[in-house]
Formats: sequence, structure tokens, C-alpha cells
Amino acid sequence: MRANLMPDIALAERLFVALRDASRDGEGVTRDAYGPGEQRAHAIVREAAEAAGLEVAVDHAGNLLMTLPGANAGAGRIVLGSHLDSVRQGGNYDGAAGVLAALAVAAAMQRAGIRPARSVTVAAVRAEEAGAWFPTSYPGSRMALGTLPTEALDIRRTDTGRTLAQHMRDCGFDPDAVRAGASSLRDTVAYLEMHIEQGPVLEAAEIPVGIVTGIPGSRRLREARVIGETNHSGATPRAHRRDAALAAAELAVRLDAHWAALDAQGHQLVCTFCTLGTTPSADFGKVAGEAAFSLDVRSVDPESVDAIFAELHRLVPEIERSRGVRFELGAESGSPATPLDDGIQAGLRAAAQSIGVPCRTMPSGGGHDAAAFMQAGIPAGMMFVRNQNGSHNPHEAMRMQDFADACAVMLRWTLEAAG
Amino acid sequence: MRANLMPDIALAERLFVALRDASRDGEGVTRDAYGPGEQRAHAIVREAAEAAGLEVAVDHAGNLLMTLPGANAGAGRIVLGSHLDSVRQGGNYDGAAGVLAALAVAAAMQRAGIRPARSVTVAAVRAEEAGAWFPTSYPGSRMALGTLPTEALDIRRTDTGRTLAQHMRDCGFDPDAVRAGASSLRDTVAYLEMHIEQGPVLEAAEIPVGIVTGIPGSRRLREARVIGETNHSGATPRAHRRDAALAAAELAVRLDAHWAALDAQGHQLVCTFCTLGTTPSADFGKVAGEAAFSLDVRSVDPESVDAIFAELHRLVPEIERSRGVRFELGAESGSPATPLDDGIQAGLRAAAQSIGVPCRTMPSGGGHDAAAFMQAGIPAGMMFVRNQNGSHNPHEAMRMQDFADACAVMLRWTLEAAG
Repeated sequence: MRANLMPDIALAERLFVALRDASRDGEGVTRDAYGPGEQRAHAIVREAAEAAGLEVAVDHAGNLLMTLPGANAGAGRIVLGSHLDSVRQGGNYDGAAGVLAALAVAAAMQRAGIRPARSVTVAAVRAEEAGAWFPTSYPGSRMALGTLPTEALDIRRTDTGRTLAQHMRDCGFDPDAVRAGASSLRDTVAYLEMHIEQGPVLEAAEIPVGIVTGIPGSRRLREARVIGETNHSGATPRAHRRDAALAAAELAVRLDAHWAALDAQGHQLVCTFCTLGTTPSADFGKVAGEAAFSLDVRSVDPESVDAIFAELHRLVPEIERSRGVRFELGAESGSPATPLDDGIQAGLRAAAQSIGVPCRTMPSGGGHDAAAFMQAGIPAGMMFVRNQNGSHNPHEAMRMQDFADACAVMLRWTLEAAG
Repeated sequence: MRANLMPDIALAERLFVALRDASRDGEGVTRDAYGPGEQRAHAIVREAAEAAGLEVAVDHAGNLLMTLPGANAGAGRIVLGSHLDSVRQGGNYDGAAGVLAALAVAAAMQRAGIRPARSVTVAAVRAEEAGAWFPTSYPGSRMALGTLPTEALDIRRTDTGRTLAQHMRDCGFDPDAVRAGASSLRDTVAYLEMHIEQGPVLEAAEIPVGIVTGIPGSRRLREARVIGETNHSGATPRAHRRDAALAAAELAVRLDAHWAALDAQGHQLVCTFCTLGTTPSADFGKVAGEAAFSLDVRSVDPESVDAIFAELHRLVPEIERSRGVRFELGAESGSPATPLDDGIQAGLRAAAQSIGVPCRTMPSGGGHDAAAFMQAGIPAGMMFVRNQNGSHNPHEAMRMQDFADACAVMLRWTLEAAG
């Protein structure tokens, strides 16, 4: 019976539609972390899990835990998870695909009456999209694991300006439990996360599934500024200008040229000025007195990231001198690179091979909750499903056949891991 | 008596304070054209002109005309004028200094009982700050001269989105008279405008007064865009990017380098990316899919302006190819260069010399209403007063002694010109 078992793809398809309908925002979807968008998504998935007969719990942080109980209570649990929040006007699959894949697997096992040795928990964790909402890595997972520093509770959501603790309370959760050291998933023995690939690598290679080797580290500037001087654009000769717009543009273009050189040398990294430009004080008829930018540098190799920052710190004083401006780079944030568990990678390759699903190993481009599990000492792995239009945009895409192939690999691996 | 006559600087000083108090906006002042800010300024100046015994009229366009009547009704009038509107959060002197200088001159002549041959009209014209409010050149002056194309009545104010005609009606003026060809200042025989210098040239040269040789022409892009593709900043390899932020930055930096080369060759021009940057769709964690910029190129020499645009049109397709983006440059606007009247320049030099005020001749950096008079076939001249902090910003400055020197020159010239 186990050999013929198939994930409940129809359930996942219904839920993709329900999630999209509940979170439409212009062309895309918005599911704001610890806000109405994420709350609606959790309610939809919770109801489906209850209908499928899984044991449903919500932990102190609002993470939704949907469990097929195992026979051996002391053996620890297998967690299949991802997140349900999205960026602003993002797509329907980033995060949600991993939760619905896990649900398709666990629901099929439940319906088939399978009682594994270890419990299998489908985890919909909170607030993964740090860039969009709470600028800290994996707060939902880290609260489940008891590894979130308590000061992170004071981080403010980028749009509302309210803290993580306030948003948690608004939704009925318990930030004080975080301060008291609570955890809900410390007994995890292995974590597996499926996610759409967020780049074009699998699509270009015509392979449906990726097995992920590691999560890149990052160094980031989120609120850098350039201070020049506002002047009349007609009456201020070249030599008297302190043009903040051009200073920011020059930094971006020259740092990009350095990336191009590193790229040509074989460094694997990305270097992105996600936002760049004059501030609202700029206006037609003026030389810009202020500009702002954010910078996101990532690589699985810390040396590549550091090479970009070394060039940044070389260029800044040079441009300050030549253009009469001052850079305020602001606080730097970031995260270490995190290799994923070799054993899980091997298990996923074996599972894919056993059912004939083509796959390749590849590094991740973005950060994922799997990193929080690895950093807590819990073996973690990830699978990517190819997509056609990138992620974090309304046109994000995924073929349902590829999703079904990845779910089938997840089911094979879970049956093996849960015993 | 005429030889000892002095402008009424005390009156001007009181009005500078009253105007500032009526239009404070943060650190600076805002006097929005055909809006509450400009309306309050006109009311203040009107009341002062009535108290000074000048004949006050408001034309169909809302231009405030304050006249010391001449003995010879058929001789045409001398107009001393400037504007009372300001940019958003600009300074108190740009425009207002010219109106108050003219009022200080005419009020002193009136108080002294002088009856010149020609009428002397102080004109506070409307809506000069085209970059800030109605993006067309000199609508107030051109309505007074009957030279504004009627389609300009449909131009929308940049902030309210309402048309010039609607704003005029809101203030009680008569856009239909513009359609009927009305004018109020066609009988002008000479126009003189004092204005703060909007750059640092006089201050650097330690000279209080400039006599202006001409108004630069311009070519402008107000709403240019770059279309790329929004993608995940971590997962999108270099070769797959269509980064709109970097494409815009590269255009700015390379066009600026071309300006530097022209500047070194002696071309007199300015080239400014007044606004430049990613649009609100940009966000941390994304490669920017869209950027926008505005470009303001000005010179008294049309060839210098054209040289910049030729380079722009060479760079755009090159950057489109190399970065996989598409530029939408939008509509181009601009104005021709306008030399000012030689006779008035000579008269101003003679007036300055007669009372020992140091001055130098220089081109204007910005556009001014004087250009509208020249373009209507009326001899026009301008004087600059040195300032310390540029214009179009809250820190705009002017020493009252320099202002008084310039007013004294204006008075000498007016006595000569009005007869």
C-alpha cells in the first residue's frame, strides 16, 4: 500500500485557489506577516488540515502545526514545512507551495491509515519574508525552536511601524512566552522544506526538481543614504554641485562593475541595489540634495560577499571626495551561509531516483526557514520546484505536474524518514 | 530731489517678513501658484501698494499691477516685475525680491511726488515656477502679454491634477479672456526684473549685482522611465537580470561624464538628473523592475544642449542592449535661449556706475519672466542680486545691503527710462 501511495494533489490545488482568492492585491497576492493576509491564509490551511484529520495546534508564536501522530512518542518528529506569508504583491507559490506540498503528503498518509513510527508535522511557520515585513531572519521558525533573541521582538514591521511583539499580540499570540524561552519544535529530528526555485536555473536546465546544497549568507545595507546639497539645476555650475543622485548612481554602477569582474572569475554571488534613488525632497528644477539606497549581497561563499563590501568601502570615500557628498551607510545586517544536511540530500536523491523524477543539486539563492533549523542543530533539507517567472513578483509560476513530482519525492522521503 | 531719492527699503523689509510669516512650510516657504500660498502673498503686496498710493489693478489672469501713473498716457509703460509664487519649501527671496524691489522703487517715487512721463507699473506676475506647479513657461506673463497658447490652460498642476483654467477660476480669474486674446501689458516699452542669482557666481566673485545677458534655453525630460524585470535578488543570477535601477544609474553616470567632457572644452551648460531612481514597486529582496528619472539640460548655446541629447540618444539603445531593459523617454519639453535687450543692459551698467555699485555681466542659469517679454518683442532686462545658499531651497539667503544696492540701481534706471 505504501508503495502505491500518492500525495493528495487535488487538495493542494483547491487550497492554491482559496489562498489566491483570499489574498489578491492588484495583479499579485499580499499576505502580510502577522497581519490580515497571513491570518486569512492560516485559517484556510487550518480548516483543511482539520478536515483531513490531522491534529492541529498553534504555538505561542502563531506557527500552525498539523500533525499525523507517530507510534513512538519519544522518537522525535519529522517536520515538513514552509511559510504562508508573501512579499507585497508577490506570487501565490513562494512559501505556500511548501506548506501545501507537506499537507498533500500528510493528508494522503492519514487517509491511507498509515501510522509512522515518528510523528509527521506539517508546519506553516510565520513571517519568513524578512525583506518585506520584519527585517530579521526567520522569526517564526526561530520562535518555534526557541532560538530567537528576545530583542527581535522589538523589530518594527516595515509598513506599520509596530513591533513584532505588538503584531503578535494583535493576532492573539504570546511574545512573553518567547522571553520565557518557549519552543514548540525542539523535538524535530529532521526538517524538509519544498519551495519554488526563485531563479531561472531549473527552468533553463529543463529539470523539474532541485535538491538544495545550502543557503547563502548575506551582508545587507537597508537604509543607506547620500547627503549632498539641494541647488537650482539651472544656476549651479558643475564645479559647485554636490549631487547626491549622481553619487549614488556612480556607486551602484561601479560596484556592479566589480561584481561583473568577480562573476567572470567564477565567484558565485549576487549584488543588488534593490532600491536606489533620490528622496521625496528632489524635484524638477533642483540638483538632488539627498539619495537613498539599499544593498543586498549574497553568496554561499563568505569571501565573495566580503570582496564586494571591501570594494564598497574603497569606493565610498573616493566618491565622497570627487562629488562633495557624504555617505551614511547605516546599520549592516546579514546572515551566515548555511550548508544543508548531507544525509537528507542523499535521502532526497534516492527518493527521486526510486520514482524516476529528474533532479539536480544546486545552492539556494535566497534564505529559507531550513537555515534556522540547521543553525539550531537540527538536520534540514530543501527541494526546489522549477518555476517560469522568478519569485517575489505577481507573475511567479509553477507547473502543477512539477509540483506533483516534487510532492511524490517528498512523500517517498517522509515514509522513509518517519519509519 | 530726484538725485537724492532712495528706494523704500524699509517697506520691502517689512513685506519680506510678512510674506515669510504667511507662507512658512517646514524650514522653508511654499507659495503655490494659483493656490492659497500665492493668493496670500498677492493680498499682502496689494495692501501695501494701496497704502503707498499706487493705482492697483488685477488683470484677467490674476497678475497684480501696481501703477504710478505717467503724465503721457500714450507713451507706454515701464514694467518692473517678478513673481510671488515659490517652489515647494523654497526660500523667501526667489521671485518676491524682484516684486518688493520694484515696489520699493515705485513707492519712493510716489511719495516723492514724482510724475514721470511714462507710467511705471510694478507687476507681480503669476505662476512663474513651472517646475513646481504648471509645467509650461511663464503662464502669468504670457497671459498678460496675450501670448499664451490657449491649450496651456489645460495643463494640470503637478500636485492637484487640476488644470490651469480650473485653478484660475477657483481664484476668481477669467481663463475665457485668455481664449478671447486678452492682454494687460501689451503697451509695455521696457521690462526690468530683479531676481536673486540662483547660483554661486556673484558670491564667489564678491560682487553684489549682476546684469544679465540672456536666459538659457532648455531641453527636458520630465517623465522618463526604464522598464526591466522584477526578480528575486538572491536567486537571479547576473546573466538573467534586467535591472532597471542599474540601467538608469548607468545612463546618469555616463551622460554626466559627457557633460564633464563638454565642460572641460568650455561649453557653458548644465545637465541635471533632478529625480532618478527606482519606483514604489521596488523593495528589499527584489531586483528593480522599473526606474524613473527626469532630466533638465540648459544652456544659452543651443548646440551645447543638443550635444547632450545626441549623447543621450546614443547611450539609450546601447544600455538597452547590454542590460536587457527598455527606456521610455516620454515627451520632451523645453524653451529657446533668449538674449536680453542690449540697450537695457547698457542703461543698467550706466545706472550702477553713476552710484558706485559694483556689478558684472553674466548669463542667467534659470528661466525668468523677462524671457516672455523679449519673446513678445518687448525690450527686457534683468539684474541679479548675489545670494549665499542658492535658490529653490529653504536656506536661500540675500544680504539686505546687496538688495538695497540693487534697488538703488533699479531706481536710477527707472527714473531715466520713465522720463
